[in-house]
Amino acid sequence: MSKPLISALAKFVAATAGRNMTKAAYVAVAVGVVTMTLLTVDPTHEAAHHGASALLWACLAYFVFEWLVRLRHMASQQRLELYMLSSSGLVDAIGALAVPVALVLGVESKTAWLLSVLWVLKVIPGIPGLRQLRRVLVLESGPLLSVLVIFLMVVFLASVAEYFLERDVQPQTFGSVPSALWWAVVTLTTTGYGDVVPVTPLGRIVAALVMISGLGVFGLWTGILATGFAAETRRDNFLKTWETVSKVPFFAALGPSAIADVTHMLRTMDLPARTMIIRKGAQGDCMYFIASGEVEVDLPGKKVALGEGAFFGEMALLGNNVRGANVTTVKVSRLLVLDLVDFRVLMARHPDLAETIDAEAKRRALENK
Amino acid sequence: MSKPLISALAKFVAATAGRNMTKAAYVAVAVGVVTMTLLTVDPTHEAAHHGASALLWACLAYFVFEWLVRLRHMASQQRLELYMLSSSGLVDAIGALAVPVALVLGVESKTAWLLSVLWVLKVIPGIPGLRQLRRVLVLESGPLLSVLVIFLMVVFLASVAEYFLERDVQPQTFGSVPSALWWAVVTLTTTGYGDVVPVTPLGRIVAALVMISGLGVFGLWTGILATGFAAETRRDNFLKTWETVSKVPFFAALGPSAIADVTHMLRTMDLPARTMIIRKGAQGDCMYFIASGEVEVDLPGKKVALGEGAFFGEMALLGNNVRGANVTTVKVSRLLVLDLVDFRVLMARHPDLAETIDAEAKRRALENK
Amino acid sequence: MSKPLISALAKFVAATAGRNMTKAAYVAVAVGVVTMTLLTVDPTHEAAHHGASALLWACLAYFVFEWLVRLRHMASQQRLELYMLSSSGLVDAIGALAVPVALVLGVESKTAWLLSVLWVLKVIPGIPGLRQLRRVLVLESGPLLSVLVIFLMVVFLASVAEYFLERDVQPQTFGSVPSALWWAVVTLTTTGYGDVVPVTPLGRIVAALVMISGLGVFGLWTGILATGFAAETRRDNFLKTWETVSKVPFFAALGPSAIADVTHMLRTMDLPARTMIIRKGAQGDCMYFIASGEVEVDLPGKKVALGEGAFFGEMALLGNNVRGANVTTVKVSRLLVLDLVDFRVLMARHPDLAETIDAEAKRRALENK
Amino acid sequence: MSKPLISALAKFVAATAGRNMTKAAYVAVAVGVVTMTLLTVDPTHEAAHHGASALLWACLAYFVFEWLVRLRHMASQQRLELYMLSSSGLVDAIGALAVPVALVLGVESKTAWLLSVLWVLKVIPGIPGLRQLRRVLVLESGPLLSVLVIFLMVVFLASVAEYFLERDVQPQTFGSVPSALWWAVVTLTTTGYGDVVPVTPLGRIVAALVMISGLGVFGLWTGILATGFAAETRRDNFLKTWETVSKVPFFAALGPSAIADVTHMLRTMDLPARTMIIRKGAQGDCMYFIASGEVEVDLPGKKVALGEGAFFGEMALLGNNVRGANVTTVKVSRLLVLDLVDFRVLMARHPDLAETIDAEAKRRALENK
Repeated sequence: MSKPLISALAKFVAATAGRNMTKAAYVAVAVGVVTMTLLTVDPTHEAAHHGASALLWACLAYFVFEWLVRLRHMASQQRLELYMLSSSGLVDAIGALAVPVALVLGVESKTAWLLSVLWVLKVIPGIPGLRQLRRVLVLESGPLLSVLVIFLMVVFLASVAEYFLERDVQPQTFGSVPSALWWAVVTLTTTGYGDVVPVTPLGRIVAALVMISGLGVFGLWTGILATGFAAETRRDNFLKTWETVSKVPFFAALGPSAIADVTHMLRTMDLPARTMIIRKGAQGDCMYFIASGEVEVDLPGKKVALGEGAFFGEMALLGNNVRGANVTTVKVSRLLVLDLVDFRVLMARHPDLAETIDAEAKRRALENK
Repeated sequence: MSKPLISALAKFVAATAGRNMTKAAYVAVAVGVVTMTLLTVDPTHEAAHHGASALLWACLAYFVFEWLVRLRHMASQQRLELYMLSSSGLVDAIGALAVPVALVLGVESKTAWLLSVLWVLKVIPGIPGLRQLRRVLVLESGPLLSVLVIFLMVVFLASVAEYFLERDVQPQTFGSVPSALWWAVVTLTTTGYGDVVPVTPLGRIVAALVMISGLGVFGLWTGILATGFAAETRRDNFLKTWETVSKVPFFAALGPSAIADVTHMLRTMDLPARTMIIRKGAQGDCMYFIASGEVEVDLPGKKVALGEGAFFGEMALLGNNVRGANVTTVKVSRLLVLDLVDFRVLMARHPDLAETIDAEAKRRALENK
Repeated sequence: MSKPLISALAKFVAATAGRNMTKAAYVAVAVGVVTMTLLTVDPTHEAAHHGASALLWACLAYFVFEWLVRLRHMASQQRLELYMLSSSGLVDAIGALAVPVALVLGVESKTAWLLSVLWVLKVIPGIPGLRQLRRVLVLESGPLLSVLVIFLMVVFLASVAEYFLERDVQPQTFGSVPSALWWAVVTLTTTGYGDVVPVTPLGRIVAALVMISGLGVFGLWTGILATGFAAETRRDNFLKTWETVSKVPFFAALGPSAIADVTHMLRTMDLPARTMIIRKGAQGDCMYFIASGEVEVDLPGKKVALGEGAFFGEMALLGNNVRGANVTTVKVSRLLVLDLVDFRVLMARHPDLAETIDAEAKRRALENK
Repeated sequence: MSKPLISALAKFVAATAGRNMTKAAYVAVAVGVVTMTLLTVDPTHEAAHHGASALLWACLAYFVFEWLVRLRHMASQQRLELYMLSSSGLVDAIGALAVPVALVLGVESKTAWLLSVLWVLKVIPGIPGLRQLRRVLVLESGPLLSVLVIFLMVVFLASVAEYFLERDVQPQTFGSVPSALWWAVVTLTTTGYGDVVPVTPLGRIVAALVMISGLGVFGLWTGILATGFAAETRRDNFLKTWETVSKVPFFAALGPSAIADVTHMLRTMDLPARTMIIRKGAQGDCMYFIASGEVEVDLPGKKVALGEGAFFGEMALLGNNVRGANVTTVKVSRLLVLDLVDFRVLMARHPDLAETIDAEAKRRALENK
């Protein structure tokens, strides 16, 4: 490739070094993995095969290039080892090195390319809400672990029992404890392939017990995760909303306790530009506060622009709940949504807010006469 | 068909254009889909076959007719494109056009009629609580999505691993990554058909890990949905109840904060006419407020009618918890149910309410002496 | 049988007519069903077979007899039709009539006796917490139903799709939509027998989607039930505890609001006579109030009896949390358990209670010097 | 073995008699069970086989020895029968006696050694959070039991129905109710081996219903456990935190009600020595109180040590949420974590705390100028 092209590419990648994933990378991952997958199907004719390998090499090239640029970029900012130890740094390295290393080590090409499946790891840092999931797993690790231990104990006890009961009847499938272990795992997870199945009456009773404990393990597992998740969601939502709320002048007036209150009631919503938030004539059961960005209310005859700190849709909460006008975002905006439910409560607890909203509502009503 | 009949039918359908689904439509959907299903079973004799096709044509005719009438009806109200873009509009269109279009395009008749399965879509707009489900899915989409991504990553990594480990031993089943992918999905969802099963020790260890992550994915999924659902239910119930509560004079007296309180405690219940609400002699643990409609208390000797705003069953909450009389709805009624639990709390928080109920109770006791 | 025996038996049964199930009935059900089950296994020799039938006849006789006596008993109390329409009345009738009717109708004996499996229905009225489960199902029926509808729609759409995709490749398994429906249910419930499995690439993709929606259906289902159950448990526990609390003089002093508070914190516990509640030297994290019955504190040298309204184990919550003495129930007792957690909160909210408990604790400490 | 070695060993074991499990025991369990498992695989050559048995004997010897020492140790403390009846005492006994007894009773050696799988029971007392799980199961036993009963009823009714419908078509699989029972359990748990599958239309409809009830049972089960678990977690966390909180001088000032409040907001965290708690430059959303141990704040130029009762990381909650310095534990420490969420609420409810923290924060800011 010609120098300028490369440097241009380098600039582009460097520019994106901050973000976890570039669109380009996503495409490369998808293309790469799919190609690799198809390659393993017997190629109908040579050409297809060659095309595929070409694609794979291209993806690999992209990842290696991206990695190198990022390394240079980070080095230039003295954040090199920080990056190399970060999850995104590691997956970049793996994506770039796995296949080449395998090839260098003389692994047969067809096999080496299988490693390109590791490219999927590149999406990990980009997964939304992954942090949240991890926190739940960490906080609940104690009980989850004990469930796992119980799971393993049941597996071992059950498989030895089955081995003892079935080995003489069907030596080919229950001929050793390891095969019985395989059966136990397949059964306790209620997967039930049916490749190994007890046939003796006693063996079947043991199996039945294992299946029922399977449900139990499931239940515990889910129960634990559900509990942890509920707590985490509340926490996460609060954090996301807090900053925003305190920025909205409308709430700034309130004391910290009231703000904590309010924060528990609001939900943040990030919208791209030109998105319709409210459709005229639709049923409304929430109002909106503009934390950042700008929206446009499409009133008969004129268009009214509302900026940071303003609110709209309050009519829906003040008796008449059919939306009176279309409202659309003008630029990327962050809104705070207040549900009718919480609105009622809020109004009850903070009458002053109620008045402000009421007054504003009246003013608008007059204005739009 | 004769003109009058058609126009009559048209009127009927137009009248129902507002509602999502008419009984007739439900019947047509059921008949149509069942007939189509049976048609695919080798017909025992010609006659049956002919009857079936006749039925299918009839259903189709009904849907087309319904659709046309609705279109005209909507057009007459300038709500045409709104309707055509609404979910119910779309399913009406699909129900009416799918099969004919297929036939016109020259698809073999037997196959074309399979499209009549799309008629089941017509029930979607009529599903109760669907809105609620959708809201949960939307609000929790973030975490749900990340679980899905994790799911896919596990599927890909596992299937490549298995392909690598099993391809030589059982080339017919693990001969390519796509087949391995099939195995991975079947296993991770703990479906476990058993058509593709790893046999090598390493392959089985990988499989065991996949199954266990299967439980994990399940757990996360459920945990997320359970959390979202809990929140949604609370919200939904509040909205449904709020309007009603504020209409009951008995509560109207209370301030907004108290109303919010009360609303959280009440449960709305819609009953058809002539339904027995309370059976004499039964155990009672809740009282009722009449939001709309009318009920009849069947006292010894006389029948007392209670209308909007009245309450009954309070005796059960004031010490004597055996129902003293049968209570039946006279017309379609909406009741607000107050559980003993919440009654206690309510009374504690709003002694004034307690007195009102007490007084009324006493009055009635005397009266019914 | 001799007259006196019969009448004695009659008395016994009549005496138990109130209760849902007598021990005898449980035994009869167990014996009957097990015998019936074993009878279907080819009998090794005649004798066994005869013995079995004898047993079955005996069980049947018991159920018929029980039913007749109950009928007479209820008739004598003018509660006949109430009983006959009650769940327990219905299952009694079924238990008594199913088999005889079948035999009379000339059903082949071996088959007729299969109906004795209906005897298991007799345990229904005796299931603990069944009321609770039913309430959850009723209250959440809305969302549960919509999940079911979605389930069915997926089943229908998927099966027609699979039928279309697989019918030519494997006509014997996917030869008609009904067989495809069978596949769809087996798959969507993640049961996965493996008797019907798609083989075409497209068919497998559809199947994968079905499996994943399977997880979704699961998740929704569980989420809904979990939510409903949480609410129900709280409610149920409150109801069970409320009555008891208000009976304990110690709490009677409190106002209704405080009682509501307390009730939310206590847990009822019913114990048989001579049960050890507290073991000396064990770690303690809760205290007990005696709602009814009597307990015995086994102090060095003397035994102290505590009756209704008294409390014990409070030391554990006042600093020293090693139990100081064995405590055993003297007769059947109902205790209210107060956890350390809630104790702290309670003390904070109702300092007067704190003092009472403190004082009593001190008094005892001195006394036991 | 030479006397001194034995006595040394004895001392070691006795020393560990208090703890549930020693590392050595864990190793022995792992080695023993794995060896036993492998032994059942046909041994490639004699040597391996001999080595394995040697290992097993060694493990057994260890367990017997450990048990004897513990017995002596406990006897010396008059806690013998207490120990022998405790769960850990029982598993020790089983671990030591099972295999020998079997061998003595003349069970064929290969089979006798299978009992060494019981060694896995030795880990039970060591499982973290097992107490918690057990409490949940106990508290929710009522509903769980009723779900189980329902499960069994469905199993019985379904299997008899299937037996009746399928026995003539496939006598080899549905030839008796017991085999039908096997099918029912496999199906209701959604395991679905596929070894026994209904083929008649009616049989399949029954099966479909069973599968769907399977989902229901799952859902109920999980719902119950999730509910119980949520309650238990809250309780557990409170107990763990309470003691600690009341020890922190910073909170001691507060009244009991405030402490109860605070306790609900804090999370205990136990850390080994030399662990980095806060990394400079990271995002912070919580502050820490030192309940016990000591931490080191690594400020530019100097290192500041903070001891019991001190707090740090508060800056993150006072506006600037980028961590300003590394903080590491010096010795094993127990910290109380206060999330931003709860911090806000706490500050709102207890302004005095807010001031203390603010003041301290300012002081430090100046100091570190």
